[in-house]
Amino acid sequence: MRISELSRRSGVSIPTIKYYLRDGLLPPGRATAANQADYDDSHLRRLRLIRSLIGVRGLSVSATRDVLAAVDVQQDNVHLLLGLVLGVLPAARSDEGSGSAAPHGTSDAADTDADVPGLPEVAALTAEMGWETSANAPAAQVVAETLETLRALGVDFDWHSLLPYAELADRTAALDLDQLTDASDPLQQAERAVLLTVLLEPALLALRRLAQEHHSAQRYGGG
Amino acid sequence: MRISELSRRSGVSIPTIKYYLRDGLLPPGRATAANQADYDDSHLRRLRLIRSLIGVRGLSVSATRDVLAAVDVQQDNVHLLLGLVLGVLPAARSDEGSGSAAPHGTSDAADTDADVPGLPEVAALTAEMGWETSANAPAAQVVAETLETLRALGVDFDWHSLLPYAELADRTAALDLDQLTDASDPLQQAERAVLLTVLLEPALLALRRLAQEHHSAQRYGGG
Repeated sequence: MRISELSRRSGVSIPTIKYYLRDGLLPPGRATAANQADYDDSHLRRLRLIRSLIGVRGLSVSATRDVLAAVDVQQDNVHLLLGLVLGVLPAARSDEGSGSAAPHGTSDAADTDADVPGLPEVAALTAEMGWETSANAPAAQVVAETLETLRALGVDFDWHSLLPYAELADRTAALDLDQLTDASDPLQQAERAVLLTVLLEPALLALRRLAQEHHSAQRYGGG
Repeated sequence: MRISELSRRSGVSIPTIKYYLRDGLLPPGRATAANQADYDDSHLRRLRLIRSLIGVRGLSVSATRDVLAAVDVQQDNVHLLLGLVLGVLPAARSDEGSGSAAPHGTSDAADTDADVPGLPEVAALTAEMGWETSANAPAAQVVAETLETLRALGVDFDWHSLLPYAELADRTAALDLDQLTDASDPLQQAERAVLLTVLLEPALLALRRLAQEHHSAQRYGGG
């Protein structure tokens, strides 16, 4: 296809495509004339992946180049490929309000061991779930920080309280992986992983809000 | 208790407590001397709620005053109370990257009906789930926007694809509501609703990431 069709089908403007070509993010097309090239579906898929990494994930152009290079090398190792694409995603953090950090010096014991005091609790949780996960994954830190924050705010909630939530997260992740199996090649799989992991996040939280509204109405409403 | 103990137990500094007292967010204590007052557990609970609304939820002082005033009036209507506390929360949005908005004019039909074209799909989803929810809730808009964005990016994913996720969100919300039942009074229930709804959000997404890592290892790893 010509660059105009590539632009139309990918939703990426021609100047941006030319920028990606100059920058090496997108491999050159097959030259058909002095100033003309032919592009195929692999260009379209790569363009969509670039767009999802930069546009949706908010990666920089250079970070995107690193991920794409790794994707090229890891085409036959789906786990590493997904790990790269999913692993580069910094885990979500709560945007805590200003001026209300947890008070210092209020914990009973002096917690000076790990970076985040709650990490051993998260390790207990993942062990209980039978999850093979890296102990210091950013996501583990987020869970640990949440437990610490709730404790600092006087909420009675520990890793045991998280267990039923972890069970549901486990099923959600299984669903997520199911979404990737019908992808035709590693590049497409990587793209779907980024799109579905990142783009579904706000939707999953929103579904929880809608369901909360429903359950609240069921339990306390009417009358 | 004296203001110093109130400060210690709530984790809110004395100057901040005095500011809330002057501003009317916190009702005055019982005067015990010319310049001294006595505070009770209701002050402590209200202070924690203020802190969770301002600090955790990021509400402004005036929005917090509105919510607190409504909480006072709705003490005996738990559904309205939770709706207030949960409903004031703007639904999470994806922080889309800059300069990569969905292209204009690429949809087949001219979608000029609703604010968000995906809303009828969300209505179909909530109907299928049997959820009693407000059709124009911010959360419904977020789900609709997600479906639109995925479509614009060429991902084959519609409201039917969201159904299994909605089932899991339904169970998550039921768990959320369970967490509130052991709260002793409406004020505490409102506080827990804010804390657990907002603070658990990043943790739930992080648990999904951990579970994704595990499932990816299970399906594609090793060897």
